Amino acid sequence: MSLFNKVTIIGIGLIGSSLARVIKRDNLAKRVSCFDAKPQYMQKALELGIVDEIHKTVANSVTNSDLIVLATPVGAYGKIIKEIAPHLKKGTIITDVGSVKTYAVKEIEANLPPQAEVFIVPGHPVAGTEKSGPEAGFDTLFEGRWYIMTPGERSSDGAVEKISKLWSYAKMRVDSMTPEHHDKVMAAVSHLPHLIAFSIVGTVADLEGYEQKEIIKYSASGFRDFTRIAGSDPTMWRDILLNNKGTILELIQRFVEDLIALERNIRWDEGDKLFELFSRTRKIRNEVVEARQDQPETEKKLLSELQRRD
Amino acid sequence: MSLFNKVTIIGIGLIGSSLARVIKRDNLAKRVSCFDAKPQYMQKALELGIVDEIHKTVANSVTNSDLIVLATPVGAYGKIIKEIAPHLKKGTIITDVGSVKTYAVKEIEANLPPQAEVFIVPGHPVAGTEKSGPEAGFDTLFEGRWYIMTPGERSSDGAVEKISKLWSYAKMRVDSMTPEHHDKVMAAVSHLPHLIAFSIVGTVADLEGYEQKEIIKYSASGFRDFTRIAGSDPTMWRDILLNNKGTILELIQRFVEDLIALERNIRWDEGDKLFELFSRTRKIRNEVVEARQDQPETEKKLLSELQRRD
Repeated sequence: MSLFNKVTIIGIGLIGSSLARVIKRDNLAKRVSCFDAKPQYMQKALELGIVDEIHKTVANSVTNSDLIVLATPVGAYGKIIKEIAPHLKKGTIITDVGSVKTYAVKEIEANLPPQAEVFIVPGHPVAGTEKSGPEAGFDTLFEGRWYIMTPGERSSDGAVEKISKLWSYAKMRVDSMTPEHHDKVMAAVSHLPHLIAFSIVGTVADLEGYEQKEIIKYSASGFRDFTRIAGSDPTMWRDILLNNKGTILELIQRFVEDLIALERNIRWDEGDKLFELFSRTRKIRNEVVEARQDQPETEKKLLSELQRRD
Repeated sequence: MSLFNKVTIIGIGLIGSSLARVIKRDNLAKRVSCFDAKPQYMQKALELGIVDEIHKTVANSVTNSDLIVLATPVGAYGKIIKEIAPHLKKGTIITDVGSVKTYAVKEIEANLPPQAEVFIVPGHPVAGTEKSGPEAGFDTLFEGRWYIMTPGERSSDGAVEKISKLWSYAKMRVDSMTPEHHDKVMAAVSHLPHLIAFSIVGTVADLEGYEQKEIIKYSASGFRDFTRIAGSDPTMWRDILLNNKGTILELIQRFVEDLIALERNIRWDEGDKLFELFSRTRKIRNEVVEARQDQPETEKKLLSELQRRD
């Protein structure tokens, strides 16, 4: 028996299309409906066979759905919820995949009439690549990564269980916490690193006297890895950074402090201090490897393809 | 006919052992000799069959070599050159693989008697992973990447040609520039990014109130990629940062300026400015992809393994 009757995915980009692939692969829904602000994304998803129906309006796409997944940039949530609110079936579960949860929850709840008999189970599958669009997705994207759920007053036990099951099929490990705690942790492990990557790629690209082509040519020496992160979706990241502002601004200050201290170590030839920091960061890398979170998603995909052939 | 009679590799870590593998694979030398300050590295290299002989002293290892490759952290060059200087065969070529060239050239030249009849061809294969040691190396590490040579007064045409050939066998593309220009470009594309990664991993790991395990657990959301870079060899990076200080200190200042500007954009909700920067950095990512420098070495290795099987 399918987990859902009809699922609607709103936003069929990297995450939305990867989830659609999992749903199709494991036959988790009888029908997958889809809406995206980009008609060409929907058309492509249909061609790929990962959704069954596409719609001209988001309101039409949700008709009779028992699960609705918001997979757009979080800045679009308010408008979407307003448009779909009058068309929700009783008992529908609304979930999302956004990287900032306090703001996401607020936007969903504030724009949904209190009398709407639906369940809200916000969540964040902590996986991704820098690529966008329905062709960038793949069904093993989520494997071995964590799904963080931030259930609230409008989540029911049944809805929480169904959402847990959905992501377990995607082979994610499921965790639960408050939206506030989620945003604090993500500011450190995700938002600050992305911000720094955007910033440094901007700095290096602006340097005069270096030819642009040399920067690109020799990028394998370190710069490349930052461009990968800084190649992430601009709209999505604008929305994340503006909507988790408090913690992020505080972290930038701490980071700058540490960087200035490191600058001073270099200026005064304090090699032992550099060595000590770099040994500490190497240890942290080892912990990431031990937790099996070290492989970039694209590498993970290649590895599983290799193993499949063995 | 082999390119060399006897090659000595000093420092049999990631780069040294990868080069040894290329030399063995393509039969570029009749004998490969090796020295490393870590006896267990030499022993492992011997077991792996990538070198033919190991030695108790670096002086012994170079006897009768027509090519000597320095593949240790650059901070060790001076001492090594002093020790091997009396044992060099006439006409020997000395090369290195260091990531800072002005300092490397100075150290090699200053410690080699002017009357020594040897050729010096400094160079830098722009490839690598964060891993260390002879087991971390692989013969496709260098494929498709750039080799930068910084020839000087003590390079002969013949020596330059031989070194070019050596790295061409490793499937590198060969470039030539001054040590000063090399160090300026690398400060931007490699040294600054590494420094930032070391710094941010330190900052995030120091945050109180977050459990260390949460940082590791959710690291796939961005932090992971920084830990990879910040997992690089501490000694090597201490030596690089202290020996390309001038340009690096200047770049840190520019980076901090840009970061503070970005911080201000976030504080004042200037979403359009964020979007503009992120679109620009995404374009740079596309240029890296077009230049085919986007794949991390480990991913490149998996891909070539997959293609081999097709």
